[in-house]
Amino acid sequence: MSDEAKLAQVLGQLDAGLDAALERLLDFLRIPSISTDPAHRGDVRRAAEWLRNELELLGFHAEIRDTPGHPMVVAHSQKGDARPLLFYGHYDVQPVDPLSLWDRPPFDPQIQQTPAGPVIRARGAADDKGQLMTFVEAFRAWKAVHGSLPSDLVLLFEGEEESGSPSLRPFLGANAGELRASLAMICDTGLYSDGRPAITTQLRGLVGEEVVIRAADRDLHSGSFGGLAANPIMILAQALGSLKDASGRVTLPGFYDGVEELSDTLRRDWEALGFDAADFLGGVGLREPIGEKGRMPLEMVWNRPTAEINGIAGGYAGDGFKTVLPAEARAKVSFRLTGGQDPERIRAAFRAHVRHFLPDDCTVEFHPHGGSMASVMDTSDPAFAAAKAALSEEWGREAAYIGAGGSIPVAGDFKEILGMDSMLIGFGRDDDRIHSPNEKYDVESFAKGARSWARILATLR
Amino acid sequence: MSDEAKLAQVLGQLDAGLDAALERLLDFLRIPSISTDPAHRGDVRRAAEWLRNELELLGFHAEIRDTPGHPMVVAHSQKGDARPLLFYGHYDVQPVDPLSLWDRPPFDPQIQQTPAGPVIRARGAADDKGQLMTFVEAFRAWKAVHGSLPSDLVLLFEGEEESGSPSLRPFLGANAGELRASLAMICDTGLYSDGRPAITTQLRGLVGEEVVIRAADRDLHSGSFGGLAANPIMILAQALGSLKDASGRVTLPGFYDGVEELSDTLRRDWEALGFDAADFLGGVGLREPIGEKGRMPLEMVWNRPTAEINGIAGGYAGDGFKTVLPAEARAKVSFRLTGGQDPERIRAAFRAHVRHFLPDDCTVEFHPHGGSMASVMDTSDPAFAAAKAALSEEWGREAAYIGAGGSIPVAGDFKEILGMDSMLIGFGRDDDRIHSPNEKYDVESFAKGARSWARILATLR
Repeated sequence: MSDEAKLAQVLGQLDAGLDAALERLLDFLRIPSISTDPAHRGDVRRAAEWLRNELELLGFHAEIRDTPGHPMVVAHSQKGDARPLLFYGHYDVQPVDPLSLWDRPPFDPQIQQTPAGPVIRARGAADDKGQLMTFVEAFRAWKAVHGSLPSDLVLLFEGEEESGSPSLRPFLGANAGELRASLAMICDTGLYSDGRPAITTQLRGLVGEEVVIRAADRDLHSGSFGGLAANPIMILAQALGSLKDASGRVTLPGFYDGVEELSDTLRRDWEALGFDAADFLGGVGLREPIGEKGRMPLEMVWNRPTAEINGIAGGYAGDGFKTVLPAEARAKVSFRLTGGQDPERIRAAFRAHVRHFLPDDCTVEFHPHGGSMASVMDTSDPAFAAAKAALSEEWGREAAYIGAGGSIPVAGDFKEILGMDSMLIGFGRDDDRIHSPNEKYDVESFAKGARSWARILATLR
Repeated sequence: MSDEAKLAQVLGQLDAGLDAALERLLDFLRIPSISTDPAHRGDVRRAAEWLRNELELLGFHAEIRDTPGHPMVVAHSQKGDARPLLFYGHYDVQPVDPLSLWDRPPFDPQIQQTPAGPVIRARGAADDKGQLMTFVEAFRAWKAVHGSLPSDLVLLFEGEEESGSPSLRPFLGANAGELRASLAMICDTGLYSDGRPAITTQLRGLVGEEVVIRAADRDLHSGSFGGLAANPIMILAQALGSLKDASGRVTLPGFYDGVEELSDTLRRDWEALGFDAADFLGGVGLREPIGEKGRMPLEMVWNRPTAEINGIAGGYAGDGFKTVLPAEARAKVSFRLTGGQDPERIRAAFRAHVRHFLPDDCTVEFHPHGGSMASVMDTSDPAFAAAKAALSEEWGREAAYIGAGGSIPVAGDFKEILGMDSMLIGFGRDDDRIHSPNEKYDVESFAKGARSWARILATLR
């Protein structure tokens, strides 16, 4: 039987088994595996065990591997001579508060009919249990048709993604030999906003920094001291307000070192996406892209670095007015990085910039909150073109290489610790309400997601 | 008998009557006249009645005059042909929390011996019952010696000073004919910091303004939107951080219109005060005056305008980090004014400055919080030189003309509504702990304060 015929059989198997696959997913969704809540510690483990059992039934060598936090589920198919692929997803879910805003219990999943088609409604449906199960159902159908699993698969399913993945990096480091593959497939992203299939090939990095400026050792009266004593809010405003110039560029010396211009190919691809900035911003009550002049809007979020103030506090900001000259002021600042920008050099440049505004008799305290380089995948690897073709075939429209403005730390960790690129393919939609009440995942996303992986497996095997 | 001999008698009378005067003050201090606390409404009235009775016993025509808030006590001595003088003080006091930090009940006053001499310990001892009673005791001694009160005195004692004086301006307006004098004597300030007697001849004005900048209609993820969507904290930081230039000058166009340079006389007087900025700032953990370069430190707080940020808030400033791009940010800003600066022109210039930084798709809201011009007394009125000489004589050291960086609204109200200057003379000390637990007033301040008024009455009659 030709490979093509076998793929057709796998796809047919997936279609025929959809109801059963949905039943399995609902079963998985019934486990309230909220990783941030210590009360659900046992449930998180139960979800790991559920997965381990599923994988063992499929013929994987599957284990629960303990960490100082919640366990990892690691599984291997038999060793062969194919290109080793790692599949990553997470089985923990976000908390559910406020519960009162849910239309039904978040862990009593249900298939619901909507004007846009049937959806799976439950906490974790889209993020990430439903997506993770697209892998598992593709493997199941593959095995049913081929008689065995594809060789050289490594599965890594995490239980702490929604609580910051504290155990992931140590675990990758301690098990590098076992986990290193030639490419990682991560199913935790979405379709492009118009429903087009997409592979996220670049993610911005992040430098987070908290700054606390202290002046007098107590709050002062601004009448008695104003104009004579240092005002930490003014110092902070001067330092932060000068981080960007009038053209929208970040002013830190050396900030743009390592930033790469968009390739002509990607520029054409992104232009073809027909991104409508006015429409996108209109959705949140805005109109005007505020990034660097002369850049196209998608570039501003996907391929240009930025500086943002995420929080600021100082003095009296409640009702009424207090003529206080406060003792301290604080802010949280983040930089989004692209290309080869070095997080630690940027952190150092920011600290030097703030110190420049600091009078001798004031002090500043900096607290680092994470630093990661941008992830830029090597799309010259033929696997990307192959996966793109497979997605285009399944969804009946041209798949796109896209970027993401946020970071997906696991992709950076895979690169840094295991030296492997990631292929970020997911089937979520903008209206899935992940992290919010009434989370859902389209049945179409689930069904075509599994079919997509079957096609990708067929082409990458 | 010569005027001089009569004054000596009045002063002797005050010395002989000190114990009885202290007893009266303690009695007054036992009334918990906290004006901000509705539970003490009756006590505030009781304090007004206590005063009215005292003044009637002295021969004043004294009345309790109701307002929408707490009453005024207004008293007149008989009409004569002398220069009419108004005396202002307030009989209400600050709240006492936290009560646990008081060494004794705040309304059980006591004379305590301290290494620096005896003090009157109680809420209101210095602010302002003790100071107000320096007037009353001076009038009492005057009457004992002269047989009658000085003519043409108007007394105005307020019961709402500690709650923002909401009824004062309407009351002055409605009773202007009765209250207008040639000069107001206000006893609610202090000695200069080294204990030197002082007349405050200028007070800075104030413009308070709250600004709220709104961008998106919800908080955004700074990964998905950072670099594309407006960040209201950044806009605010840019607007506020550019309010002052590197030399410490306020950048608003026209801001310095009306600001007057210090006269040579006042400059010499202020230089003679020997103000040690490093010492003053050292008391609050600072060292360096941050005002305009080339200005002497006292000038910075007393005779130069400034811009201060009193409070700022936006985004997430709690523990940890949230990569939020917030929907709004807000700040409270105040300007301290000198000379003839116009509060409303400065408010308008500030608003225009903020709008300059505002993208078209964002909005800004401004909330005014008060505006008052600086008060600059006309010290060419011979009454000032006379009072200064009287104070110098009483305290055995040269009295000083000083400024104040804060505003004392009643002085501005007297000027604006009644057209009269104020002479601000008080006997408080920096360590009186007004508004704080364990408030005190030195017995010396009380005794020499009353003697000072007797001398001033003698010279101004």
